[in-house]
Amino acid sequence: MVSLATLSGPLSLSERSFLKRSLVLKIGFIGLGRMGQAMASRLLAADQKLFVFNRTSSKLASLLVGGATACASPSDVARQTDVIITMLADDSALQEVTSGDGGIIGSMPNGGIHIAMGTHDVSVIKRLTAVHEAAGQTLIAAPVLGRPDAVTTGRLGIIAGGDAKSVARCLPIFEALGRRVFQAGPDPSAASAMKLANNFLLASAIESIGEAFALVEKSGVDVQVFHDLVTDGLFASPAYNTYAKIIANKAWDEVGFTVSLALKDINLALAAGGAIGVPLPSANVCRDRLLGASAHGEGELDWAVMARDQARASGLI
Amino acid sequence: MVSLATLSGPLSLSERSFLKRSLVLKIGFIGLGRMGQAMASRLLAADQKLFVFNRTSSKLASLLVGGATACASPSDVARQTDVIITMLADDSALQEVTSGDGGIIGSMPNGGIHIAMGTHDVSVIKRLTAVHEAAGQTLIAAPVLGRPDAVTTGRLGIIAGGDAKSVARCLPIFEALGRRVFQAGPDPSAASAMKLANNFLLASAIESIGEAFALVEKSGVDVQVFHDLVTDGLFASPAYNTYAKIIANKAWDEVGFTVSLALKDINLALAAGGAIGVPLPSANVCRDRLLGASAHGEGELDWAVMARDQARASGLI
Amino acid sequence: MVSLATLSGPLSLSERSFLKRSLVLKIGFIGLGRMGQAMASRLLAADQKLFVFNRTSSKLASLLVGGATACASPSDVARQTDVIITMLADDSALQEVTSGDGGIIGSMPNGGIHIAMGTHDVSVIKRLTAVHEAAGQTLIAAPVLGRPDAVTTGRLGIIAGGDAKSVARCLPIFEALGRRVFQAGPDPSAASAMKLANNFLLASAIESIGEAFALVEKSGVDVQVFHDLVTDGLFASPAYNTYAKIIANKAWDEVGFTVSLALKDINLALAAGGAIGVPLPSANVCRDRLLGASAHGEGELDWAVMARDQARASGLI
Amino acid sequence: MVSLATLSGPLSLSERSFLKRSLVLKIGFIGLGRMGQAMASRLLAADQKLFVFNRTSSKLASLLVGGATACASPSDVARQTDVIITMLADDSALQEVTSGDGGIIGSMPNGGIHIAMGTHDVSVIKRLTAVHEAAGQTLIAAPVLGRPDAVTTGRLGIIAGGDAKSVARCLPIFEALGRRVFQAGPDPSAASAMKLANNFLLASAIESIGEAFALVEKSGVDVQVFHDLVTDGLFASPAYNTYAKIIANKAWDEVGFTVSLALKDINLALAAGGAIGVPLPSANVCRDRLLGASAHGEGELDWAVMARDQARASGLI
Repeated sequence: MVSLATLSGPLSLSERSFLKRSLVLKIGFIGLGRMGQAMASRLLAADQKLFVFNRTSSKLASLLVGGATACASPSDVARQTDVIITMLADDSALQEVTSGDGGIIGSMPNGGIHIAMGTHDVSVIKRLTAVHEAAGQTLIAAPVLGRPDAVTTGRLGIIAGGDAKSVARCLPIFEALGRRVFQAGPDPSAASAMKLANNFLLASAIESIGEAFALVEKSGVDVQVFHDLVTDGLFASPAYNTYAKIIANKAWDEVGFTVSLALKDINLALAAGGAIGVPLPSANVCRDRLLGASAHGEGELDWAVMARDQARASGLI
Repeated sequence: MVSLATLSGPLSLSERSFLKRSLVLKIGFIGLGRMGQAMASRLLAADQKLFVFNRTSSKLASLLVGGATACASPSDVARQTDVIITMLADDSALQEVTSGDGGIIGSMPNGGIHIAMGTHDVSVIKRLTAVHEAAGQTLIAAPVLGRPDAVTTGRLGIIAGGDAKSVARCLPIFEALGRRVFQAGPDPSAASAMKLANNFLLASAIESIGEAFALVEKSGVDVQVFHDLVTDGLFASPAYNTYAKIIANKAWDEVGFTVSLALKDINLALAAGGAIGVPLPSANVCRDRLLGASAHGEGELDWAVMARDQARASGLI
Repeated sequence: MVSLATLSGPLSLSERSFLKRSLVLKIGFIGLGRMGQAMASRLLAADQKLFVFNRTSSKLASLLVGGATACASPSDVARQTDVIITMLADDSALQEVTSGDGGIIGSMPNGGIHIAMGTHDVSVIKRLTAVHEAAGQTLIAAPVLGRPDAVTTGRLGIIAGGDAKSVARCLPIFEALGRRVFQAGPDPSAASAMKLANNFLLASAIESIGEAFALVEKSGVDVQVFHDLVTDGLFASPAYNTYAKIIANKAWDEVGFTVSLALKDINLALAAGGAIGVPLPSANVCRDRLLGASAHGEGELDWAVMARDQARASGLI
Repeated sequence: MVSLATLSGPLSLSERSFLKRSLVLKIGFIGLGRMGQAMASRLLAADQKLFVFNRTSSKLASLLVGGATACASPSDVARQTDVIITMLADDSALQEVTSGDGGIIGSMPNGGIHIAMGTHDVSVIKRLTAVHEAAGQTLIAAPVLGRPDAVTTGRLGIIAGGDAKSVARCLPIFEALGRRVFQAGPDPSAASAMKLANNFLLASAIESIGEAFALVEKSGVDVQVFHDLVTDGLFASPAYNTYAKIIANKAWDEVGFTVSLALKDINLALAAGGAIGVPLPSANVCRDRLLGASAHGEGELDWAVMARDQARASGLI
């Protein structure tokens, strides 16, 4: 783990000045959904000049006001920048933007860097790593830990994988964007694996909390008492506190992260294990639970509804 | 959850005095292994007079010095006390002490209370609840959260299940012993279920950490980096910090809790679910992992060695 | 496998005569439910003189007419016989009959043989093996494959485990009772393990058929077509033909073997694996399915209703 | 299920004559690996004129001798035929041949039929169904049950899914190729699901046999005895007889179907369930076992080596 000055909270004047000096890179940003917008805004706040593209151009408005330059296509971004950040929702969008018609790969300069910050399939990252390398370019996978509000408050975690020199060159960007960088090593796909492992850990925590609640609830225990126990000591952490509360209150219609998106991630984790011969039995359990929820029309509820599928299997509802 | 004065750290003079006034009960204590000794010592420190019995009488030495009265048998304890605490390692010991030859049930007074503080099978607790009730006595199940050092430092958690009036009567004892009481409701076996659910949650956390480490390690990530990620934010808690460290360092020969004991507990959790129709798929995964470790001669290592069994299944070792 | 003359169909005159000469043993029979009655009747038909005991004596009527001698207690049986067959529904009955008050162990002669033909826990068989050995007696575990009609038609399979000489001595009995003896070796509990492995295989076949039906049914396939495929070639066997038909027709209210009994057996299989460090992940899946059925009030339906629990998890019902 | 004259064994003269009259279709055949060659040979033996293409043209030699016409590309096949059979090893080959550069879709006539007889992903079949429909053509999915020797001896099973009229039109082809047609209904992807369900059933049977063998072997039973039991009655079928024998003899180096190919199929089955909300817990168990084998360098052994991975998890090897 690289020792970095922690950049919590809004950027101070001296931080901005430091970043401005250290960042000699022209940065492209493609994929400006909620997360991408928060990240791009933070870079603008660090006085970076950004070249932005989004399929739906209306999402660019506030960034343009903030000083970003709109581009007509991914390849248009590529022609004007040294480093391109992509923050895309899925693998097919990443593949299209990278090597589809009008993709960045044909227009990026020799030595250019593509930082893929979405959560992607390890095999897709492997393939695009090879594609960029063949074009004399470098892919860094740098998926993030945290939601838009973590970006705003400077608490974002970043997992960076790829060629060491290129990652070092991008560190000022990562420092501007977040709080801490976890170095996954020279293989970009290892960063994907690490991000997927993190998401799997959370899925598994939710699943086991759901199972435990079913056991005690059917045993006659007041679920609030069990909530108090789970959040009291051994497990007290943002993950357990958040999900024990949602589960105790059956509050899955306040959606933070949907079953459908969680299914996508757990499938990616299983595929990552499958590609290298790592069975993940707990991930199987989570996947079956998410599928069960989905089969009962709960695909757009918060994934804590996994606990409801467990309750259903237990004859509680 | 009952709002209790928190009794952290050594007992103050005023606390001792409060307890002395409130405790009009004569307390028996059977089962004085490491945990039982720590608990009995704490009660003696609260100026309670204890009547103690242990199968291996040598373990009583320091308690007798501290003022406890030695008894010749469980029934001898029963004849002299209003409340008997048992802290026994397994179900057969509990059944023997309760209703075996020379067990307490024949000598306890009408209205007497037996507080079973070990971790026991829900069906055994159900059976002994009925046996005591038939004899005009009351069983409270009050398994604990924490190890001997948690007793010493006043951080013990207690899960109390049983007749509300009897539990209320015993609250001063629980307050002397620990930090917080979780009320499981009127059925003693519900307290067992809750304790087993807690232990299962921990097993499942360890299992998922082990799976995640196998995935990232085989992907080429430095395990210390993944350790840093797991303990950094979302999961930062005693459970995850402790076990991510042991697993990253492969330090399972420093034994806190063995595979064999963990197997016993996970089997009890599965039996608890089995008795009331609650499938626990994550507990199955944990059990298989513990069995795998056991099958490879690792039964007396720390249960974090579950991660080693996962690594083995992944062809990493 | 011992090569035995196959004794299919009713016993011929020459078979009876052979058996009469070879059987110098006086046989006790304890446990005369439907299965026990069929077996005892077959022994009587082979001109054996039986000494019988059942807790509910009304079940003895037809056997007494057939020439059996009624006994007042298990120990009464033991006093008059060389070999005692028990065919008991569960482990506690077996333990009671063997070593409880008035159990056989105190009255069996030195060198006496107890053939336990029920389906029992391996640890119980291990314990009773030691108990008999300490008393100078021998336990043979000889669980059976088949239902009462298999006894009547001479198609019963027998799995025999125990001291080789004692098993050899009992072969005429096994030949009278069934079609084929599978030799599990010198450890009686191995015969239990083998019987439990057989029942687990069947459970797992049903589970996988249920999963496959859910997949194709939700894909829009007519279940009768899939029934035809399953019973057509690769899997065509009594097990698959029977259960594919029940599942295709959702005919689980015609009960051959209940969910509750199946749960008992799958728990015994898991316990057998647990005792020797053999994880059985498919057995876990079966257990969870049976628990799910049980949790939905289907405990007394045929265990093919596992397929219904799968359908429920799949949102099909 | 359609009632068909069973065409076992080599075709008789009258059968050839019947087929010749009924088949007014000009047939293309793309994908002539071992299975494809056997199928194409059988069609030639039924006096059909075939237009064939294979990426590796050397595989065409014997078919050309038999009267087939070689084509230069898939589109070249498409231009000369009414019906095209593809028998391709994987989804990417199917997609390339169908809608890649020089694919059949641009050259097939309006009303043309593409019969995809390989084992394919349901989502790929869904996509290609739409692609063909948009081009005024029809896709039938007709995966097969059996290996090349089943083709030669006329024992092939065929699962046909797609537009009823088009399937009816192709029945003479199916009758020439095999023994029995299972009608999956109007959605071609349902035929894929049915084929994947069949392969999953076999995987699950092997897995459970492997688990059962581990249980009895570690219990001290001679594996040959357990082999005899498994193949004796309840389960006696080609599937159980074949795999119990391989497992008892540890004969996984005689490869019928590799772990790697089995992994592909089980992943397709899980994906099929995932797409429609059907959790398949037994398939998860099989996948983990296959991954374990793969992780231990056994990817190119016969998939019965799943039993070896179970033995490894049980500490038997």
